[in-house]
Amino acid sequence: MIKIAVDAMGGDFAPKEQIAGVYQALKVHDDIEITLFGEEAVMRPYLKEDHPRLKLIETEGVIPMGEKDPIGAIRSNRKSSMAMALKSVKEKTHDAVVSSGATQALIAGAHIIIGRMQGIKRTAIAPVLPTVVKGSPFILIDSGGNIEIKAEFMVQQAYFATVYAREVLGVKDPQVGLINIGTEEGKGRTLDIEAAEALKAHPAISFYGNVEPKDVLNPPTTILLSDGFTANIMMKTIEGSARGFATILKEELSQGFLGKLGLILSIKNLKAFKKRLSPEEIGGAMIYGLDGVLVKAQGSSNANGFYNAIRQARKIVDQDVLGKVRTIIEASTDEKA
Amino acid sequence: MIKIAVDAMGGDFAPKEQIAGVYQALKVHDDIEITLFGEEAVMRPYLKEDHPRLKLIETEGVIPMGEKDPIGAIRSNRKSSMAMALKSVKEKTHDAVVSSGATQALIAGAHIIIGRMQGIKRTAIAPVLPTVVKGSPFILIDSGGNIEIKAEFMVQQAYFATVYAREVLGVKDPQVGLINIGTEEGKGRTLDIEAAEALKAHPAISFYGNVEPKDVLNPPTTILLSDGFTANIMMKTIEGSARGFATILKEELSQGFLGKLGLILSIKNLKAFKKRLSPEEIGGAMIYGLDGVLVKAQGSSNANGFYNAIRQARKIVDQDVLGKVRTIIEASTDEKA
Repeated sequence: MIKIAVDAMGGDFAPKEQIAGVYQALKVHDDIEITLFGEEAVMRPYLKEDHPRLKLIETEGVIPMGEKDPIGAIRSNRKSSMAMALKSVKEKTHDAVVSSGATQALIAGAHIIIGRMQGIKRTAIAPVLPTVVKGSPFILIDSGGNIEIKAEFMVQQAYFATVYAREVLGVKDPQVGLINIGTEEGKGRTLDIEAAEALKAHPAISFYGNVEPKDVLNPPTTILLSDGFTANIMMKTIEGSARGFATILKEELSQGFLGKLGLILSIKNLKAFKKRLSPEEIGGAMIYGLDGVLVKAQGSSNANGFYNAIRQARKIVDQDVLGKVRTIIEASTDEKA
Repeated sequence: MIKIAVDAMGGDFAPKEQIAGVYQALKVHDDIEITLFGEEAVMRPYLKEDHPRLKLIETEGVIPMGEKDPIGAIRSNRKSSMAMALKSVKEKTHDAVVSSGATQALIAGAHIIIGRMQGIKRTAIAPVLPTVVKGSPFILIDSGGNIEIKAEFMVQQAYFATVYAREVLGVKDPQVGLINIGTEEGKGRTLDIEAAEALKAHPAISFYGNVEPKDVLNPPTTILLSDGFTANIMMKTIEGSARGFATILKEELSQGFLGKLGLILSIKNLKAFKKRLSPEEIGGAMIYGLDGVLVKAQGSSNANGFYNAIRQARKIVDQDVLGKVRTIIEASTDEKA
């Protein structure tokens, strides 16, 4: 049995959507046990069925989504659903945590409570996103973990993603693309040039070369790599572009009678369009580099998004991703020591 | 008379679209004289009318658009249309150059032939882009000039943009937004934190604060500022998003009979949509920090795009943007000396 700890209280629509996602996961996978960490009084309305593989652990308080001092909040509230769920993985009563709570508090809490894997210097947030044309997933690292980072840590993250892509996404020879302002060798900042050289030299990484963000919705590689600042700028630009395009499209399509008619006829298709861009359909973001499995579902997760994050956590444990990464990382650390 | 030097040979559709843009400019503005720098034999088919304010200067050779060694190319071909046009501004026989030639060669050539303005350490590429909702223009700096840069040079560029926005775009109190991963003070890399502090302290800059790229198509400020790497990543992400969205939209809209019908009815509106996103409608990118006026039109410019770049160059000269920037920059350099 794979034991999954769920922080039921974190997220924009918690605990309702989280609990619905949990029931969905229990129904599909019969090799998982789930423990809900949360306040029973708040969760009760959504706990519709008793389930032999579902448990509850009572916690006190929630880390609010807009928390201004996330590190302080998680430090001072060790009985919160988030802190207790993280602790259960540290103490090995559970194999993985899934949470859609406040990102910064979750990352800080994971560092304080679970800690980093030996030999890893920087954790990374690695969401799995859908490509636009083929619909096949790709991994974007680092989505906001490390604003300033050294090339060697980027390479560790790329290796982590390589194992993840092979074991969880089932990609045979996952390639790594470095996000850059040009495809030619030698492009970019000192950081990018150093990272490219180290990626090329790494025996266990298939380095594709530089990838320009104009291919961002349809990347030629399973893994896209950059520092946390750049990847975050990219993610937010996609969001901004989507928002801008939607606005114009709506305005233009509603001009004139024919446009209006076209809009009405197309609405069903536009909804399908929106769904295809949604990361909810694929899952959450694994936090790379911890001494335990943590999957971060989006704050705005609905039941299906949260279910997908649980499914992802299950597979990470089942395929022993951490064990596989650990062997190589520890070996390379030993060499250096 | 404002004398404008046009590099007629650079650009994906040169010299046809460039010459058509020139005729358009001569028709609209009666206070400009234009000199075409190029090879008469190549230009002849497009030179339909003689014009009292149009001259030709014969040049030899072109810097190719995909040139791999742009600096070498411009160094070794001083009789090229690009080099000769730049030289005419250095020698003050012309007030401004407009070119849609290879960007890197143009920037390198501008440094070698025209040189930097006294007191300015880094030039910047500053395109004027359309906002999505209001359609009012905004300036994005630096779009690819400086991959690694110090905060103090970013502040110089912001000041340059402030003068440009006031004099050329006619914005009374142009505000500067710093592109960042969060709106709160203290966000971002060391570079961003230092830039924010210096912008806040600058007496002649209205600093708005941080702007997230999710507002990139509709920024709250007339000026958006970042380093050349980040701004370029952002531009290319917008391009990639547009490409991806267009692909999905086309696929989704053409699914099923109603979708197809909707698509046909909406096609005119979708064309208007595309036009609204086109920087062609607004103009080119001024290169800030040179000891002369240089406007870079897009490589893919059509006649209208090129015309708009000429119009922009005319206004920069007419409003004496360089003179106004020079006064302040030189004053602040004197203080430091």
